[in-house]
Amino acid sequence: MTTGKINVSVENIFPLIKKFLYSDHEIFLRELVSNATDATLKLKHLTGIGEAKVEYGNPVIEVKIDKEGKKLHIIDQGIGMTGEEVEKYINQVAFSGAEEFLEKYKDSAKDSGIIGHFGLGFYSAFMVAEKVEIITKSYKDEPAVHWTCDGSPEFTLVPADKTDRGSEIILHIAEDSLEFLEENRISELLRKYNKFMPVPIKFGTRTETLPKPEDAPEDYKAETVEVDNIINNPNPAWTKQPSDLTDEDYKNFYQEVYPMQFEEPLFNIHLNVDYPFNLTGILYFPKLSADLQVQKDKIQLYQNQVFVTDNVEGIVPEFLTMLRGVIDSPDIPLNVSRSYLQADGAVKKISNYITRKVADKLKSLFTENREDFEQKWNDIKIVLEYGMLSEPKFYEKAGAFVLYPTVDGKFFTLDELKEKLAPTQTDKDGKLVVLYASNKDAQHSYIAAAQDKGYEVLLLDSPIVSHLIQKLEADNENFTFARVDADHIDKLIKKDEQHISKLSDEEQEKLKASIQEFIPASGYSVQLEAMDSNAAPFMITQPEFMRRMKEMSASGGQGMFGNFPDMYNVVVNTNHELSSNILNSTDKTHQEALVKQALDLAKLSQNLLKGEELTAFVKRSFELIK
Amino acid sequence: MTTGKINVSVENIFPLIKKFLYSDHEIFLRELVSNATDATLKLKHLTGIGEAKVEYGNPVIEVKIDKEGKKLHIIDQGIGMTGEEVEKYINQVAFSGAEEFLEKYKDSAKDSGIIGHFGLGFYSAFMVAEKVEIITKSYKDEPAVHWTCDGSPEFTLVPADKTDRGSEIILHIAEDSLEFLEENRISELLRKYNKFMPVPIKFGTRTETLPKPEDAPEDYKAETVEVDNIINNPNPAWTKQPSDLTDEDYKNFYQEVYPMQFEEPLFNIHLNVDYPFNLTGILYFPKLSADLQVQKDKIQLYQNQVFVTDNVEGIVPEFLTMLRGVIDSPDIPLNVSRSYLQADGAVKKISNYITRKVADKLKSLFTENREDFEQKWNDIKIVLEYGMLSEPKFYEKAGAFVLYPTVDGKFFTLDELKEKLAPTQTDKDGKLVVLYASNKDAQHSYIAAAQDKGYEVLLLDSPIVSHLIQKLEADNENFTFARVDADHIDKLIKKDEQHISKLSDEEQEKLKASIQEFIPASGYSVQLEAMDSNAAPFMITQPEFMRRMKEMSASGGQGMFGNFPDMYNVVVNTNHELSSNILNSTDKTHQEALVKQALDLAKLSQNLLKGEELTAFVKRSFELIK
Repeated sequence: MTTGKINVSVENIFPLIKKFLYSDHEIFLRELVSNATDATLKLKHLTGIGEAKVEYGNPVIEVKIDKEGKKLHIIDQGIGMTGEEVEKYINQVAFSGAEEFLEKYKDSAKDSGIIGHFGLGFYSAFMVAEKVEIITKSYKDEPAVHWTCDGSPEFTLVPADKTDRGSEIILHIAEDSLEFLEENRISELLRKYNKFMPVPIKFGTRTETLPKPEDAPEDYKAETVEVDNIINNPNPAWTKQPSDLTDEDYKNFYQEVYPMQFEEPLFNIHLNVDYPFNLTGILYFPKLSADLQVQKDKIQLYQNQVFVTDNVEGIVPEFLTMLRGVIDSPDIPLNVSRSYLQADGAVKKISNYITRKVADKLKSLFTENREDFEQKWNDIKIVLEYGMLSEPKFYEKAGAFVLYPTVDGKFFTLDELKEKLAPTQTDKDGKLVVLYASNKDAQHSYIAAAQDKGYEVLLLDSPIVSHLIQKLEADNENFTFARVDADHIDKLIKKDEQHISKLSDEEQEKLKASIQEFIPASGYSVQLEAMDSNAAPFMITQPEFMRRMKEMSASGGQGMFGNFPDMYNVVVNTNHELSSNILNSTDKTHQEALVKQALDLAKLSQNLLKGEELTAFVKRSFELIK
Repeated sequence: MTTGKINVSVENIFPLIKKFLYSDHEIFLRELVSNATDATLKLKHLTGIGEAKVEYGNPVIEVKIDKEGKKLHIIDQGIGMTGEEVEKYINQVAFSGAEEFLEKYKDSAKDSGIIGHFGLGFYSAFMVAEKVEIITKSYKDEPAVHWTCDGSPEFTLVPADKTDRGSEIILHIAEDSLEFLEENRISELLRKYNKFMPVPIKFGTRTETLPKPEDAPEDYKAETVEVDNIINNPNPAWTKQPSDLTDEDYKNFYQEVYPMQFEEPLFNIHLNVDYPFNLTGILYFPKLSADLQVQKDKIQLYQNQVFVTDNVEGIVPEFLTMLRGVIDSPDIPLNVSRSYLQADGAVKKISNYITRKVADKLKSLFTENREDFEQKWNDIKIVLEYGMLSEPKFYEKAGAFVLYPTVDGKFFTLDELKEKLAPTQTDKDGKLVVLYASNKDAQHSYIAAAQDKGYEVLLLDSPIVSHLIQKLEADNENFTFARVDADHIDKLIKKDEQHISKLSDEEQEKLKASIQEFIPASGYSVQLEAMDSNAAPFMITQPEFMRRMKEMSASGGQGMFGNFPDMYNVVVNTNHELSSNILNSTDKTHQEALVKQALDLAKLSQNLLKGEELTAFVKRSFELIK
């Protein structure tokens, strides 16, 4: 029997790192600046607990391009390394410096925000550099060292004459990566990944005009100075306590994250939890544009103030991916697939927490200033309605703040709606019928008819509303929705009183036959009703069930209904004068003209008179007035 | 000065592999079955060139679940390994067996379809197993060996009594991965990743009914046998030559790839190139559904018949991501970010090749059976139009097959269109005016007016058509598009002949004033025109430029036009009797009624009479006939 140790030879690991670990080459800068930040925060921690007897000062990380020399420098004033530490942290790949440090100073280090897994990140430098140098001096009283490596496993390590504390990493940029010597490119990367990192990062200088002194002479000429160009905000809003932030602060932070966004957000939700997971962040409800697809992937994910990604699928519940803002959590596993993320227990907890916080915030906004909330309703409803359909926990809480607007601008919660409508809109079987319209214009005549009866009509115009209605009906007993054009109003809410038909059964049969003769056989069914004599004589309705099923098929439910043809009823008011006229007409041509004109007018009200039919109708009508 | 070798210690590489390399744990099965396939194909190759003096036979790979023992077995009848080879290929992580093999048998191995980078893939087993065993016997006359490792770097290697050639991998599934002992889960993974792998894969058995013998007695009872359940098709259509495939074969393969898809594809494009890169595959044009977003990510990417992903963003030109089918190429770098992919030269070439092949296929389809191509136009136009806008190379070729349909079902290429329209639709300034409608129904009266003049009207109803029109105008001199309702027809194509107005200038001014009095001041401008006395008296038009700019803003171009209000012209035909009636009316009330009715009718034709106005119009009209 043989036993032994599996051997990993380094010649093969290097290309692996280059190829697999960081497929996005630009990541190298994030990793190196993270390491520099790490080294600085470690020093801060050690001076803080008295372990390091040096002055922490106001350390800055500097990124510097040497275009002529084809070099990129990353310089920190952090903890530095001794020769021995270089040997340990750099020459032993995959030895995680930060991990060992954390192990040693476990409790006191917990809150110091140490970022990285040193070893591996550093090697990402070889994705863009043909040679890398480290010149470093430890905070300990030991000589500086100079490490050089050209990407092969061979390195050299010699003493250096650096006297100030910290590390300087020098990348000799490879020919295929010269883009990383461009100021614009580096500036773009720093803005993307390091905008909110906790140690100030200097990249070049900028000119600043000095304030005019009070005793300035009349011919005073503005004086300018060169100052360090600090590209980051080391203390972004989400790292602060909500109580320390004003509305203005939140709005300013939104501008900081989305400099190209000119519209103000509607409101924000500050996330702040440290048990059982650590998460901070600020989410904003933006004004949604019509194209919901474009909205997605706007939330930025950070880990300890280092930008990671703007794809938060799987972390943020799907219905909230239309929001904007920032989430920062060290507890979200990175470099893993989305499907893995979605199955991860910690990530699920985070997602649930975010859902809960959003629901709580909505509730308090509603309670504190209902009027303001109502005004914002149109901008937020899609997100909330989608949340009700996709997240059971959100649905449970939604009763407290989800609104149902009417066509004339009133807003009800579900409970208020039930209370308000119960006396008038309960039908003879004890069922509460909620009338709604999907379009104020297109369904105007039907809305008017319902309002004439004293009924309320909701305006429910989201694309997914048919799914929501379906769910509400299932969860609320004796509660049903009907679109105003689903039938004539006396049938939508059946009461006990009935209109008596002026026509006898025989006359009705004759009338029906006369009408059917001139109406297309397919698509339209004739339905005679004894209605108020002032109600419309002809009217086209579309039964609720089939229409709703078709809508649900169209907006994401699958199902067989999508391909069903539209079915309409022609509701004829037997008590209207026109019905008698048709019935009693002895001139067949005149009778046909009456029926066709009445049908055309009914179709107009339902937006069904189109194309050639409409052109003929308009032409005929022009003839009448010329 | 110190020099040395960077040392990679294995304790740290294992978690790295576990965590970073394969974040999707399920991948382990793909990797192990790939290795088994690899070992089998290697043997095939060696027997083929006479290097291995054994019978190749009909090897099968078997996947077996031992639920009680919590084990998963992957068994092949391939090349096997000697103890020395286990030492070399397994115990030296990241040593790529396949690479060395390829190096040695370079030329002869080229076409044998060897899949893998052995070493690393094997270690993915530790993502789901707490212990892994290999029992393997080489095709060489050497004893079998048994390797065991529990995920630490320590392994044991002992002789084994296996007598048949090949390797058996035994995974002791870890507690957190018990899902991989479920038959459904394994079956799902095999279907997902291995459906088209080149060696038959057995997973369990299934019952098959024997055919009834010819001399069966009357009371014959069907006999059944247990047969191996082979889950893959080792010779999928894309690996064959187009000349060996019938239409039926292509359709059947489509069903194989998309078993839940009941609609037949419109046509297919067989990709087959081996220089300067290797790519095979079959793409299908499906019938597109209304929701284009849902269509995406349907093309499956394979590498040597191993499924990799169904996200082909960056590999397939964006306008073709709505297609379906399979692409197989060993030349596409995996495990890299999308942004890297898009910058990769080889991938760009692949993308360009696909574009060219698609264009060539479309051209030949058009040439070979134009009628059939025209019938399919509506289903493919969005893809083609989008391609013209996004891929300059595709745009260049599009002239040969992109069609412009008319409202009455004729189809022209751009050149045909120019030739056909030149005699009739060139205006007095030498500009060829192409009339189009976006909706046959909504613009019916305008289309009719254009057709009365003998003009052709195109039907251009894609959401991005305004962008395409804009581009065509820019690229073709003296060539312009106008929607039929952009002005009245004599103004859209200005000819030299002119209608004389029956009204004097003075009368015209008076008429205009009378009309303006009863027309809303904002949104509508009154425009008097001397037209044919039979043309419509009132008509609403919407100028081309502003409407088109607004449409372009809405469909993805940004721009300031999106928020501009709609502007309409009320074109009044001064030669129509109604104009005289309005002019000469002395009864103000009657004059107002005439103007308002005429405006309502004009609005009806342009689908602008809505809501309260429409309800009032219908009510008034019902009054007239009762």
